[in-house]
Amino acid sequence: MDDRLQRIEAALEHFIPAREDSLSKTVNAAMRYTLLDGGKRVRAVMTLAFAALCGGREEDAMPYACAIEMVHAYSLIHDDLPCMDDDDIRRGKPSNHKVFGEAQALIAGDGLLTKAFETALCPEAVQAIGAERAARAAYVLAECAGETGMVGGQCIDLETEEKPATLETLREMDIGKTSNLFMAACMMGVIAGGGTESEIEAAKEYALHIGLAFQIRDDILDAVGDAAELGKSTGVDLQNGRGTYVTILGVERAQELVEENTAMALQILEIFPGDKTFLRDFATKMVWRTK
Amino acid sequence: MDDRLQRIEAALEHFIPAREDSLSKTVNAAMRYTLLDGGKRVRAVMTLAFAALCGGREEDAMPYACAIEMVHAYSLIHDDLPCMDDDDIRRGKPSNHKVFGEAQALIAGDGLLTKAFETALCPEAVQAIGAERAARAAYVLAECAGETGMVGGQCIDLETEEKPATLETLREMDIGKTSNLFMAACMMGVIAGGGTESEIEAAKEYALHIGLAFQIRDDILDAVGDAAELGKSTGVDLQNGRGTYVTILGVERAQELVEENTAMALQILEIFPGDKTFLRDFATKMVWRTK
Repeated sequence: MDDRLQRIEAALEHFIPAREDSLSKTVNAAMRYTLLDGGKRVRAVMTLAFAALCGGREEDAMPYACAIEMVHAYSLIHDDLPCMDDDDIRRGKPSNHKVFGEAQALIAGDGLLTKAFETALCPEAVQAIGAERAARAAYVLAECAGETGMVGGQCIDLETEEKPATLETLREMDIGKTSNLFMAACMMGVIAGGGTESEIEAAKEYALHIGLAFQIRDDILDAVGDAAELGKSTGVDLQNGRGTYVTILGVERAQELVEENTAMALQILEIFPGDKTFLRDFATKMVWRTK
Repeated sequence: MDDRLQRIEAALEHFIPAREDSLSKTVNAAMRYTLLDGGKRVRAVMTLAFAALCGGREEDAMPYACAIEMVHAYSLIHDDLPCMDDDDIRRGKPSNHKVFGEAQALIAGDGLLTKAFETALCPEAVQAIGAERAARAAYVLAECAGETGMVGGQCIDLETEEKPATLETLREMDIGKTSNLFMAACMMGVIAGGGTESEIEAAKEYALHIGLAFQIRDDILDAVGDAAELGKSTGVDLQNGRGTYVTILGVERAQELVEENTAMALQILEIFPGDKTFLRDFATKMVWRTK
């Protein structure tokens, strides 16, 4: 795992090198500030693991692992802006706009989102897996990140603020905001790894449930977790009139939902003939994660 | 021309249909508000014209014509936000965030940028021109729109505010902010139309100069144009200590630069064997445009 993380960090550095002599060095620095510092690289690791599971080479999937981290980083920067969650702390450090100002943070997010597609379609990526699979992977990324995916989830989030929401609405919001990037991560891994259509579909299902488990666990941690350990403020959701899985169902039932979704994800993994140990452990570990 | 514009509008509507029954209908409405209303479609028309010039079919280039308009629309929305230019009026109407609020405008921009890549790589686009060319076109779009392209230009814009700038800095800013989207438009047209590498390069050069001509003419119109005719505020640049081509060189010399850049663009066109009338007229018309 440590080796994998090091290779991911090196690849991210490769795709967005420092440009300190450039007139636009500030946006470059702002992009690198959020992309390169900390983060568990959960999504990138999933991309690589699914590529390996399908018998592909992890290095061929690396541009897609990086692309998903770029999309994730952009979403964090825009989420933290004053007009959104107005969050001053991210991963235990000042959030992007606190360091670079709102305008640079805004365009740093734009730059990261754009760079994700540049990375997914760069000559080395296309040469490694072929244009057909590169185009498909980048298309999946756009679908999952866009208005019917993550951006749609953000919209539901904004629209339902302050009003009590149903479980169905929470589910659609969480699939939008959280599952969709996991879906892109896992599906791109399968595509880069040369998997079949039914493997792409299975990766999507796995990610859907892992995303829900991840998000519900997030709600639990927001309610009962430790701010220092998490590296972000807690109790944020509770100030919102919308409610969460925890406020609607209680911590115990919410945790059961985490376990149920994880179980479903584990079951779906069975269709893959390869070594599933890593992705299985990975899913299981998330059930009781504390940060 | 009118027929072309109608086909562009219909295609944009096709790629981002209304989703009024969706929980995320607000971001969809915000995306459509800026994308579908008004606009000269200059970039889209260039994409189609270059595809035709290379002997390609305009309909095959339509996803790329739409993609460039989506990127342009996203850039307008984010530019108008309070932390950027803080502009309340766009094309004679309230700007996006005045109608939908800052948060929805922010994610509508994100959604449009993402949708541009979804459109460029959608199954119908890939089927029409092949994955190789689709991936190449989308890659060019990302390069031109990102941190070393348009986003880089925005960064220079922010960094040089209030401080007197050199002509060299203005040029780099304008190439970033304006030429890059023209470059993507023209290059994608050639790629979709099946043009050669040297035609892609020529399209890039044409666009570079057209973009500079367009932007310098914009500076002139900001200084001496009519706000009602333009549909936006004038005199904005003059309040900024940075200066423009007009404040540094005067209107007359700035207009000469418009003409020089247009002449260079016209000359580059000569390498194309096809019918250049439209792109020639198009460039020439921009030299004296008043809106």
